Amino acid sequence: MSKTDAEPAKRGRPRRGPDPERYAEIVEAAAEVILDKGYSATSIQDIADRVGILKGSLYHYVRSKEDFLYKIIKDVYDEAISDMHTVTEGARDPLEKLAAFVRAHVLFAADHLVPYTIQVREFDRLSEHRRAEIREGGETYVVVLQRILEEGQREGVIDGGIDPRLASIMITGELNSMTRWYRPDGPRTADQLADVYVGMIVSSVASASAVESAGGIETLRSSFSRG
Amino acid sequence: MSKTDAEPAKRGRPRRGPDPERYAEIVEAAAEVILDKGYSATSIQDIADRVGILKGSLYHYVRSKEDFLYKIIKDVYDEAISDMHTVTEGARDPLEKLAAFVRAHVLFAADHLVPYTIQVREFDRLSEHRRAEIREGGETYVVVLQRILEEGQREGVIDGGIDPRLASIMITGELNSMTRWYRPDGPRTADQLADVYVGMIVSSVASASAVESAGGIETLRSSFSRG
Repeated sequence: MSKTDAEPAKRGRPRRGPDPERYAEIVEAAAEVILDKGYSATSIQDIADRVGILKGSLYHYVRSKEDFLYKIIKDVYDEAISDMHTVTEGARDPLEKLAAFVRAHVLFAADHLVPYTIQVREFDRLSEHRRAEIREGGETYVVVLQRILEEGQREGVIDGGIDPRLASIMITGELNSMTRWYRPDGPRTADQLADVYVGMIVSSVASASAVESAGGIETLRSSFSRG
Repeated sequence: MSKTDAEPAKRGRPRRGPDPERYAEIVEAAAEVILDKGYSATSIQDIADRVGILKGSLYHYVRSKEDFLYKIIKDVYDEAISDMHTVTEGARDPLEKLAAFVRAHVLFAADHLVPYTIQVREFDRLSEHRRAEIREGGETYVVVLQRILEEGQREGVIDGGIDPRLASIMITGELNSMTRWYRPDGPRTADQLADVYVGMIVSSVASASAVESAGGIETLRSSFSRG
C-alpha cells in the first residue's frame, strides 16, 4: 500500500484505516460488476473503474479480488441465516415453520437480489479455505430447513418416508433458482411468489395426517399460502 | 485461417472441411475447460491448450469462443427436449407424464452432467441473438412441462389453483439445481434421486381428487417414485 495509491482528496488527512461507509459503497459497486461480468472475468481494475477511484486505492480495503467475493457472500449469508431464525422462531408448529422459512427465503432473496444471486452463482469460486469457513462458521440454510423437517417428522406432520437432508437440499435449490428469473419489475410481487412456493413446498413433504386435518391437499396448499 | 495454423500431422492432406469426430472431441474438451474456469474466464488459448493443438487450428472449427458455448448448449438442449418427448409420449395420464418428465430430466442431467451444467450456468452468457434462437427454435423444458400440467388440470388430476407456467418454471429450477451438488460417485444413484424428485414434485401439484384416488398423499408420493 504505497502512499501514491491514496485517493487525492484524502491526502494529508490523518488516516485511521478504511472508512466503513466508503467500504460498503465499494463492496456494493464490486457486487454489481461481479453480477454483470461474472466473478472470473472481473478484475480489480473493473471494480476501480465502476467506483471511480484508482485501482491502488482499493487496496486500502481488500488484499485481493477474492476478498470482495468473500465479503459479499459472507455478509448476505449471515444476514439471511439470522433472518430465517427470527422468522421461524415465531412459528408455532413445524408446518408453519416450514412456511415461514420458505416465505422468508423468497422475500430475502428478492430484497437482496444482487448479493444473493452472487452467493448462489459464485460460491464455488471462493477458495476451499473460505468455503469451509462459511460452511462451518454456522448453520447453513440446508441445516435450518433440515431441522424443521425432522421436527415435523417427529410430530407426524411431515412424511416419515422423506430424507430430511436430501429434501432440504432439493427445496433450497428450488428456492435459490428464483435468482435466475425473478425481476423486481416482473408481473408478480415477491409476496405473491412466496405464496406459490409455500403452497407447493409444504404439499411436497406434508404427511397424510397433515393433509387430512387441513381438509385435503388443495386446502393445505392454499391455507399456508396466505402469509 | 492461415496455412501455418494447420495441425502438423494433417499438413499436406487434402482438407474437405473440419473432421466431425475431431470437432466433437474438441467441443468436449472446450466444455471441460468452460466448466472448470467459467465461460467468461475461458480463452480460446485455454481450449487449445486442453486439446493440445495450436490456437489457430481451432478456427477450422469455430469463429469465436461463443461458437463453442453455443454448440455445447444447443446440442444438449436439443437432445434433452427430444428425450423428454419420447419419454412422456409413452405415458398414459398426465400424472404419469409428469413423473416420466421429472425422471427423464434427472437421468438426462446425470448422464450429460458437463454440458447440462454449462447449459444451466452459462446460458445467459450467450449473445441475445443466440439465446432467442434457442428459445424460439423449439419447445423449452418449461413449455413441455407446462403442457403436461395444463392437461392435468383439464383432467382434474392437477390442482386447478396452480399457475401452470409459474409452477413449470419453479419445478424446472428445482430440477436444474441438482447440477450444483449431484456427483456420479455420490451416495445415491441418479435413479434413486429421480424417485425422490418425482414423489415431491407430483405431490406438490396434485389435485385433491388425485390424492384421494391414490389412497393419500404418502401413497401417491411413493407410488410414482418407483420408476
